[in-house]
Amino acid sequence: MGAGVATRSGESRRGSDPVDLLVRGTLVDVLTGTLRERAVAVDDGAVVALDPPETDQPATRELEAAYVAPGLIDAHTHVEASMVTIPQYGAAVVPRGVTSVVHDPHEIANVLGPEGVRAFVAGADRTPLKARTTVPSSVPASALQDAGATVDADAVTDLLDDDRAVALGEVMDVPALVAGEESVRAKVRAARERGLAVDGHAPGVTGDALQAAARVLDNDHESVAPAEAREKAEAGLRVYLREGSTSRNLADLVDLVNDVDTRRLSLCTDERDPADLLAAGGVDNAVSEAISLGVDPVTAVQMATVNTAEAYDLPFGRVAPGAPADLVLLSDLGSWAVDHVVVDGVVDPVEGDATAAASSPQPDLSTDTVAFEPVGAADLAIEHPGPGPVEVRVQSAVGDFRTERLTAAVPVETEAPPRGTDGVLVADTTADVLPMAVIERHGGAESSRVTDRGDVPAVGRGFVHNLGLDRGAVGTTVAHDAHNCLVAGRTHETMAAVANRLREVGGGICVYDSADGSFTTLELPVAGLVADAPLESVAAGFEAVTAAAATVGLSVPGGLLELTYQALEVIPTYRLSNRGLVDVERGELVDVVAE
Amino acid sequence: MGAGVATRSGESRRGSDPVDLLVRGTLVDVLTGTLRERAVAVDDGAVVALDPPETDQPATRELEAAYVAPGLIDAHTHVEASMVTIPQYGAAVVPRGVTSVVHDPHEIANVLGPEGVRAFVAGADRTPLKARTTVPSSVPASALQDAGATVDADAVTDLLDDDRAVALGEVMDVPALVAGEESVRAKVRAARERGLAVDGHAPGVTGDALQAAARVLDNDHESVAPAEAREKAEAGLRVYLREGSTSRNLADLVDLVNDVDTRRLSLCTDERDPADLLAAGGVDNAVSEAISLGVDPVTAVQMATVNTAEAYDLPFGRVAPGAPADLVLLSDLGSWAVDHVVVDGVVDPVEGDATAAASSPQPDLSTDTVAFEPVGAADLAIEHPGPGPVEVRVQSAVGDFRTERLTAAVPVETEAPPRGTDGVLVADTTADVLPMAVIERHGGAESSRVTDRGDVPAVGRGFVHNLGLDRGAVGTTVAHDAHNCLVAGRTHETMAAVANRLREVGGGICVYDSADGSFTTLELPVAGLVADAPLESVAAGFEAVTAAAATVGLSVPGGLLELTYQALEVIPTYRLSNRGLVDVERGELVDVVAE
Repeated sequence: MGAGVATRSGESRRGSDPVDLLVRGTLVDVLTGTLRERAVAVDDGAVVALDPPETDQPATRELEAAYVAPGLIDAHTHVEASMVTIPQYGAAVVPRGVTSVVHDPHEIANVLGPEGVRAFVAGADRTPLKARTTVPSSVPASALQDAGATVDADAVTDLLDDDRAVALGEVMDVPALVAGEESVRAKVRAARERGLAVDGHAPGVTGDALQAAARVLDNDHESVAPAEAREKAEAGLRVYLREGSTSRNLADLVDLVNDVDTRRLSLCTDERDPADLLAAGGVDNAVSEAISLGVDPVTAVQMATVNTAEAYDLPFGRVAPGAPADLVLLSDLGSWAVDHVVVDGVVDPVEGDATAAASSPQPDLSTDTVAFEPVGAADLAIEHPGPGPVEVRVQSAVGDFRTERLTAAVPVETEAPPRGTDGVLVADTTADVLPMAVIERHGGAESSRVTDRGDVPAVGRGFVHNLGLDRGAVGTTVAHDAHNCLVAGRTHETMAAVANRLREVGGGICVYDSADGSFTTLELPVAGLVADAPLESVAAGFEAVTAAAATVGLSVPGGLLELTYQALEVIPTYRLSNRGLVDVERGELVDVVAE
Repeated sequence: MGAGVATRSGESRRGSDPVDLLVRGTLVDVLTGTLRERAVAVDDGAVVALDPPETDQPATRELEAAYVAPGLIDAHTHVEASMVTIPQYGAAVVPRGVTSVVHDPHEIANVLGPEGVRAFVAGADRTPLKARTTVPSSVPASALQDAGATVDADAVTDLLDDDRAVALGEVMDVPALVAGEESVRAKVRAARERGLAVDGHAPGVTGDALQAAARVLDNDHESVAPAEAREKAEAGLRVYLREGSTSRNLADLVDLVNDVDTRRLSLCTDERDPADLLAAGGVDNAVSEAISLGVDPVTAVQMATVNTAEAYDLPFGRVAPGAPADLVLLSDLGSWAVDHVVVDGVVDPVEGDATAAASSPQPDLSTDTVAFEPVGAADLAIEHPGPGPVEVRVQSAVGDFRTERLTAAVPVETEAPPRGTDGVLVADTTADVLPMAVIERHGGAESSRVTDRGDVPAVGRGFVHNLGLDRGAVGTTVAHDAHNCLVAGRTHETMAAVANRLREVGGGICVYDSADGSFTTLELPVAGLVADAPLESVAAGFEAVTAAAATVGLSVPGGLLELTYQALEVIPTYRLSNRGLVDVERGELVDVVAE
């Protein structure tokens, strides 16, 4: 209509009635990309006006802050990496100004399947944190290990119908994606039909394969090098700059903000271990890091608010009339110094909630997921009649979640072999080649088992190099992606002791110190992955077990978290699964004994 | 997942098979906001890769261009303003690189209601132009005139279910919106429930009313002053910079690109008359204007592509793998010199289509919408026994679609009055005060009629100042918003002649020159608003009638288009509707005779 078609100005419904809350300060306006003095009027949980600072708008409560920013959104994370439930995660990060996470319950899905995912993500209803789900797309990781569950296209479709679902979760099988395999296409189609995004996971993918993947994917968070990130942005993907606990890529990638339109960039954590989440925070830490690396503060906040909101069509992540009142009141922007947090108009909603989360366990979470029978040394060892030494294939843990192929000669113990055997391959401690085992712990169908010993669980047995253990053993039921029970140690006896301890407590991470016979255990009873306990206590437990591991000599780069990737049979080169030693590049099981 | 979680690069499905099309040139990449040399590979209607320029990708067809941009999207327009159907509009603008419009069939809705809207927008299936609809929200404009139809909340809801619907159309009744009246709320709710946008229309609305409106609205295209535009952007609205035929606001507003994040700005035309659309183009003209005003070319293209695509969640408006191949090949970017246009992979799709559109009329369009019985002078005149002069209330047409209130003294013709009367008020030609009439032409229900003369139609009779006519009469069935038949002239006889001519041809715009007894008529038989004819012929007709109007002296600023707003009873001050003279500020009918 023509310019002259004037409409009479409407009356404000506010009138002289007080609003619930008025917050004065410098608004970090992510829509206009500006900083300006405003009085943010909040009523009934929503922002109702951005008034001039001199407004005489009455309010039930008034607050003042140096800066007022929208609540932050983590564009991609796995809550399980912080080893707590969603309400506990919320209790930890909401006070830091993280009012939303887009999270992928990939680990829970591998253990508990669709029903477990449903129960886990329902925790979002018990926290002010706006936890939105991307539906795990790649469970199980392969057919060479027994996970707890399969999430097929039908299950994905069902999960996408959940109100909290915002995307198909990181699609990991890029070859299948590019080849247009129906199993992947069906999941993508289900997301598209619902108007949802499709998250990518394409580390190191470039060239033609990237162009092909970009036809389907909306984003990627796996870039580690600037050229990779730029190529992905230029292929039309949203690029998420990751600042996790182990993968800290922000400093390497940050110059991208000068090369491409920043609207297509978001910040994410991907994973934060409990101690790091407690000490440094979640995506709030990425924001302050970005600012300290020279990113314009408004741009940095945009990358953790409106950009991500646009990626997933979220109604928050901005401060504007009509938007939910999710606000962070800061005394300093650059260091992200938080005074107060407002979620849906409620000031500092988490104090009470943290208590509630601690005292009122989230229902329906499975805490009986370590299903194997007690094991003995013989169950974890490779029988061999001797004489030794015997050439074996070994995965060398070199850090950054990588392994290298190694051949080593290990002794055969025939003089005092585990009961029931005539001899077994044992550690070559001088060469730091130690036995490792992966015990199926999901009580899987017999048909999926590769056991050769009757009623014992399906156990993969092999060797690992470079852990550095001086004594004792370590073990974990957090063992990507299938999350079986992985143990490694100087002797099969101590490995069995650790495995049995983890079995007793329902999962977690355990260190056995043979010097004093002590076990140090971080109990993670929910799915053997997380605890429904305040982050403070989980972080303390994580630090205790980390310290215990260091005491017994664990020196592999990445420490215990590195251990949790030793069974991931889709990352080169060798990986031990509960079915045996996987040659990842060949995509098949190989004998540990090389001759 | 961790950074080291590498996935094997996938194979491209392209292999050595030729793609359908390869376009080499400098890509205007609206996602990254950069210009760079690329070879855009197109297959099966979609972009499949952005290859390096040196690629040896085989292709069935290769094209080269200085620049390759995404097809443009007009963020808000009324196709009816160009007086053609959608296929004819498409035939005109697609070759200019406008491959999509978001259009509001507000005028059709006022004449033909929901069924007519459905038939009109179905024309989108007969053109490569991707015409997306915003559903008229404000039909009729008021209860003080008889439009052809009402589009109530139920009808809006039905229309929003059309696949082409992307938003609730411009909400004009800001007071009702701010007051939360259920009639408006129901329409807004229907849009929100479908995940669709809500377009605004808030000219001159500022302060508290703007903040309140911004809680509901997503955008506004009515800013005429920089401060107004900026305040709207700061209230969280997307701001559409309008460059229409009559409302050309771009030059005034363009500095906003330096003040706010340009992602929230879009370009639109709102309305382009046929001659202007033919000569200067649609939103392509706004892009080249923006560039000539100093806007960075990539930013200018973003404002007519990806920004608008984000506003309405459109899958095109970018050149990236997976996106529809809507491309504009340009020899020059600044002047928007188009060599070729590609839509869904089809090169220059409109040549054949223009012929098809011309030779194959769009079905189901109503062409019998001028429903009144033939009128005589007496039907259009205000009876008065005399003697004169008599004081009357007059709307003075001052341009920019504004009117001012005037009181004038007009003579009474009693010596040779129209048959059936004893005397009528007539023109004061020395003061340029001429009779005007608005004839209900929709065949509305008797109950809606205010006729006082039995079987004649419901006619509003009054006076207008400042048209400048030296002789003859002018008339139009394009008469916002109700689109009744408006006629004005030196005498009631000539006015009646024009009205009857328009009745005979089924609507349009007509000029009668009493010097030679000639009628010049632009026939607009579809709804009395548009013609299903090529833009070239409609533009020629529009220019002919414009020239004829100038010949008989029409000198009001805005010309014939100004005339089409003289019956719009929601814009101050006086407006004549078919029910009589409306005092807009008082919101009621008033007597023309002032004493």
